[in-house]
Amino acid sequence: MSRFLIDRFQGMEGYQLGEQPKNREYIKLNANESPFPPSPLVLASVTGELQRAQRLYPDPACTEIRREVARLYGLPMEKIFCDAGSDVILGYAIQAFGGRGCPVCFPDVTYNFYKVCCRTFGVPFHEVPLREDFQLAVEDYRGRRGCVFIPNPNAPTGLTLTLEQIERLLAQDRDRLVLIDEAYVDYGNESCIPLTVQYDNLLVVHTLSKAYSLAGARVGFAVGSEAVIKDLNALKDSFNPDSISTLSHAAGAAALRDQAYMRRCVGAVMETRDWLKEELRALGFTLTDSHTSFLLASPKGISAPEYAKKLRERGILIRYYPQPRIDGYVRISIGSREQMEHFLQATKEILAAL
Amino acid sequence: MSRFLIDRFQGMEGYQLGEQPKNREYIKLNANESPFPPSPLVLASVTGELQRAQRLYPDPACTEIRREVARLYGLPMEKIFCDAGSDVILGYAIQAFGGRGCPVCFPDVTYNFYKVCCRTFGVPFHEVPLREDFQLAVEDYRGRRGCVFIPNPNAPTGLTLTLEQIERLLAQDRDRLVLIDEAYVDYGNESCIPLTVQYDNLLVVHTLSKAYSLAGARVGFAVGSEAVIKDLNALKDSFNPDSISTLSHAAGAAALRDQAYMRRCVGAVMETRDWLKEELRALGFTLTDSHTSFLLASPKGISAPEYAKKLRERGILIRYYPQPRIDGYVRISIGSREQMEHFLQATKEILAAL
Repeated sequence: MSRFLIDRFQGMEGYQLGEQPKNREYIKLNANESPFPPSPLVLASVTGELQRAQRLYPDPACTEIRREVARLYGLPMEKIFCDAGSDVILGYAIQAFGGRGCPVCFPDVTYNFYKVCCRTFGVPFHEVPLREDFQLAVEDYRGRRGCVFIPNPNAPTGLTLTLEQIERLLAQDRDRLVLIDEAYVDYGNESCIPLTVQYDNLLVVHTLSKAYSLAGARVGFAVGSEAVIKDLNALKDSFNPDSISTLSHAAGAAALRDQAYMRRCVGAVMETRDWLKEELRALGFTLTDSHTSFLLASPKGISAPEYAKKLRERGILIRYYPQPRIDGYVRISIGSREQMEHFLQATKEILAAL
Repeated sequence: MSRFLIDRFQGMEGYQLGEQPKNREYIKLNANESPFPPSPLVLASVTGELQRAQRLYPDPACTEIRREVARLYGLPMEKIFCDAGSDVILGYAIQAFGGRGCPVCFPDVTYNFYKVCCRTFGVPFHEVPLREDFQLAVEDYRGRRGCVFIPNPNAPTGLTLTLEQIERLLAQDRDRLVLIDEAYVDYGNESCIPLTVQYDNLLVVHTLSKAYSLAGARVGFAVGSEAVIKDLNALKDSFNPDSISTLSHAAGAAALRDQAYMRRCVGAVMETRDWLKEELRALGFTLTDSHTSFLLASPKGISAPEYAKKLRERGILIRYYPQPRIDGYVRISIGSREQMEHFLQATKEILAAL
């Protein structure tokens, strides 16, 4: 800490990213990255863009990406916001709509970034406990007047809300903004984006880091009412209008164009996930009913951190959260079938050696 | 504006980017973009990266870029920060070091982003007037206790401070952070980065958008004391740790590696700039002694906005600032020699038709 830093930022903690050690080759199952490369269209599009426009500033309106999203969901482009990754959008939303006298609300077990982000921006928050079985009960949010942030499916539980439940949440208070973070929606779940037509208090956030295999490109988008999207654009224009590089813009638009490819990748991940879930269950693990690209699993006969440590020694990275309620679990990103067979074999060896 | 937006952000103005109209092909001399493509190494590096790592999250430490900067200036990597464009770094610096009871200080005629940024983050600022001839007198900053932001060369005046003047500024108050924004330093000027060895109150910010022809990639870096760099990293980790995409990271590192290419491009721009300066002088224009990739010129016999408008009708975009002191001037980015000959021809036609 330098002697120039203002008081408010002293003791910042930062968001704990999935580690990326470089001391050896690892099977990375700790950051929910896709095991597949992005669509071949991405390669073609970026290669084309490479020759052209790197010397020029990007299009701050992200027109191409927004056009693809508009086409995909049959919505006007004015309802679509785009920025360099969904975390940026979440950060803008917390700054723009949080802290209006009432704390921002989110589940006690959820994407840790919300909490970090609220602390960073000095926005008060309130954690609403999930029920015993990690289920989210929308009635627990009734009467809460601050902005609500909910990932659907939730992370790292992997559990989902139905559209009907989300609609009930929206109808509880039409003057309360509800942000639904659909980072993992493409893994077999229904998006609530169509509800943005009836509910102007709904903001839906997507990332291209998971299903579209573009974690490296930093592209996210949000869909909401024109007024809310205008607010996000005003923040973007003030903070960092040129945030998406020309290459990432080209990559994102091409990835969105190739829905068939995305669905094939997602299908393979879901198939591997469901196979692995049964295999781990057979080993006595406790698992949630994950509708995402990861499993939340409590190992049998070994503590979660010890299990993660032993896997790491075998070159496999998974995620362990030393925090209440889920410290008996690990989060395992679904890699390729081959990677997960390797993972399963390693798990069996670890259990056998106990 | 939605009914959900917090009060503080109501009436945000945003930074006015150089416009990018799409109604026809323009010769773009309004955004200080390089007329040259980036180094061929960039193409090779990004193409290699494209096949590899898009599906994975980026390296938040930007190791490759920082390694190149460290090599270039013979400094340890701990003194180097990297993020997605110099504007992001300026924003972090204003948040981290501004507003400690005293206003941030910068010249009254300078990069407008500082003011917009201070307003966005609610940080008080004070504009220190340049002297009559747009010269910056460092003694005018004596006794000012808030953080000082100065572009060197200054924009859009194009005028420079010597290293000796910067050192005097630093020595005025060792407990005051001075940020020197060297966006245009590569156009024939000396960097003050070596002064970071003696002065821990100096932070130097660079962009790859100008001399390295990478405006589209969004890459910037800063050099300062280890403590100040640690503060910037703490902010980055809290706000947006994964901000530089894998492709931009590859592009930036490759561009930095090819210093010879950068110097050739910069040399060509400076030659064209100095030629054009004489030509415009011969037409009666008043010009500052610009040490950048643009000229600040006051046309003769026509008002600045009228001149810009008439050029626009001829498919040439330049920048006009409707603000005190420089509203008699236009800023002309230096394009290729061919583009500037076209520009000069258009200017002569406009003057002849008066």
